[in-house]
Amino acid sequence: MIERIAILGTGLLGTSAGLALRAAGFRGTITGWNRGAESARTALAMGAIDSIASDALQAARESRVVLLAVPIYATLDWMEQLSGVLGPEHLITDVGSTKAQITEAAGRLFNTPERAGFLPGHPMAGKERGGAALGDADLFCGAVWLFTCDPGWQRSVQSSALAESWRAWVVAMGSKTIDIDAARHDELVGWVSHLPQFVATALSALLEDEVGDAPELKDVGGRALREMTRLGASPYSMWRDIAYTNSETIQAALHALEQRLAHLRENLRTPELRDEFEKANRFRRE
Amino acid sequence: MIERIAILGTGLLGTSAGLALRAAGFRGTITGWNRGAESARTALAMGAIDSIASDALQAARESRVVLLAVPIYATLDWMEQLSGVLGPEHLITDVGSTKAQITEAAGRLFNTPERAGFLPGHPMAGKERGGAALGDADLFCGAVWLFTCDPGWQRSVQSSALAESWRAWVVAMGSKTIDIDAARHDELVGWVSHLPQFVATALSALLEDEVGDAPELKDVGGRALREMTRLGASPYSMWRDIAYTNSETIQAALHALEQRLAHLRENLRTPELRDEFEKANRFRRE
Repeated sequence: MIERIAILGTGLLGTSAGLALRAAGFRGTITGWNRGAESARTALAMGAIDSIASDALQAARESRVVLLAVPIYATLDWMEQLSGVLGPEHLITDVGSTKAQITEAAGRLFNTPERAGFLPGHPMAGKERGGAALGDADLFCGAVWLFTCDPGWQRSVQSSALAESWRAWVVAMGSKTIDIDAARHDELVGWVSHLPQFVATALSALLEDEVGDAPELKDVGGRALREMTRLGASPYSMWRDIAYTNSETIQAALHALEQRLAHLRENLRTPELRDEFEKANRFRRE
Repeated sequence: MIERIAILGTGLLGTSAGLALRAAGFRGTITGWNRGAESARTALAMGAIDSIASDALQAARESRVVLLAVPIYATLDWMEQLSGVLGPEHLITDVGSTKAQITEAAGRLFNTPERAGFLPGHPMAGKERGGAALGDADLFCGAVWLFTCDPGWQRSVQSSALAESWRAWVVAMGSKTIDIDAARHDELVGWVSHLPQFVATALSALLEDEVGDAPELKDVGGRALREMTRLGASPYSMWRDIAYTNSETIQAALHALEQRLAHLRENLRTPELRDEFEKANRFRRE
């Protein structure tokens, strides 16, 4: 029922979505647009999109579903622009990592019977490095794809049907969908996704300063070090918007971890250390 | 040239060493001893050892090489006991995660022409859970196996030859050997191995408190969360001795990370955040 999709942003997630749709059997047309043309050409060469749009708004108008796969503030910008040109026969969805502002804008700009529908989405999938060339048809396999709709929205019949159809494609791409309140989403991912990222960044930056030039370093650090610093490669360009739009939870989480580390540091030789290890063991219980 | 090896401690590392020796073509006899008999029986059933010793000291006397694969303080205890019963025709080696105290004891108790040789070793390999049943012939493949000998030691000809032979088996098990000063070893692993462990423990314990009962948790946390908390499953029983014997470096490293996290927390919306991400990116440069 979706015969044409426009993917605005052909980075890692946009390109992967195109590839995953194809792998899942999507037979409609996929048009891609990217601010930098090279990325769109890569996505085209990889088969993630069928054509490159020169005008994103026109491509959106000609499509039933628009997938925004750009950073959060760029998503908010596109939402403003698209609200003026799309009607109730369209659905827009996104992949932004924080959802409070996007969901608020979705309620303000879309999701009435007279306007386009907007389905705020967040696939819990990615890589520590971005770019179309790393696009992967299996990126969403086994992942959770979160949606943060407001139950009070009254979408048009057409955009509601498109939203159901998009959810079905998400499942066909291998993801499990979960609906969650936007504020609760941002709080939860603040702890289980953003906090781990900032810890990996801090640990990597610290080790770069302390032992970055040790010749034995690459050899001695084994799997544990690689895992604990893998996210250190993540680009600022993506995380800047996340830091801005979820500051409060991230600050609370970082502060709590600082206190936890201080507690460990002060108890390296006391039985308190056992309690912390046992609590950590419980978090990792099978 | 090593016809008989005694493995004292048939946990994950001892059992893996037995299996790896066999896989590498070792044809001599391997005797195993463990404080708890069940672990030794598991190692025997897995083919990691040929027989279970009822008396560890007698097994050591009957072997050319004794591998101590027990926690650090237990290693130091065995060193005291073995120094009274083994002579220059023997070599002892170990797998302890900190090396300053063990290397000091090795110089005090061994490594003269009249005494047994002691080769302090540390394979940078392991799993987040211990036990003989997880023993793995490939555990040391691709890992680094550190040695911290003092250049002033004057070992007997026999134990020197046994040390060379053990190093050759370590290479045959797939490891790369590196010689490093014991104090430098403890400092380096304090930053690249112990710090990541304590961070994973603190992060896991914090998340257990904050979101341990969130029903969406297991779904939402993807690969990144799994990686960043995998070491949270590590047992206190092993880390207690490491915390005790490398407290100073671990304290310094934890304190430095606390400051780094506070810096990130205070700069979530400033350009400083970019600097930290870029420094972290440099640590992970290919």
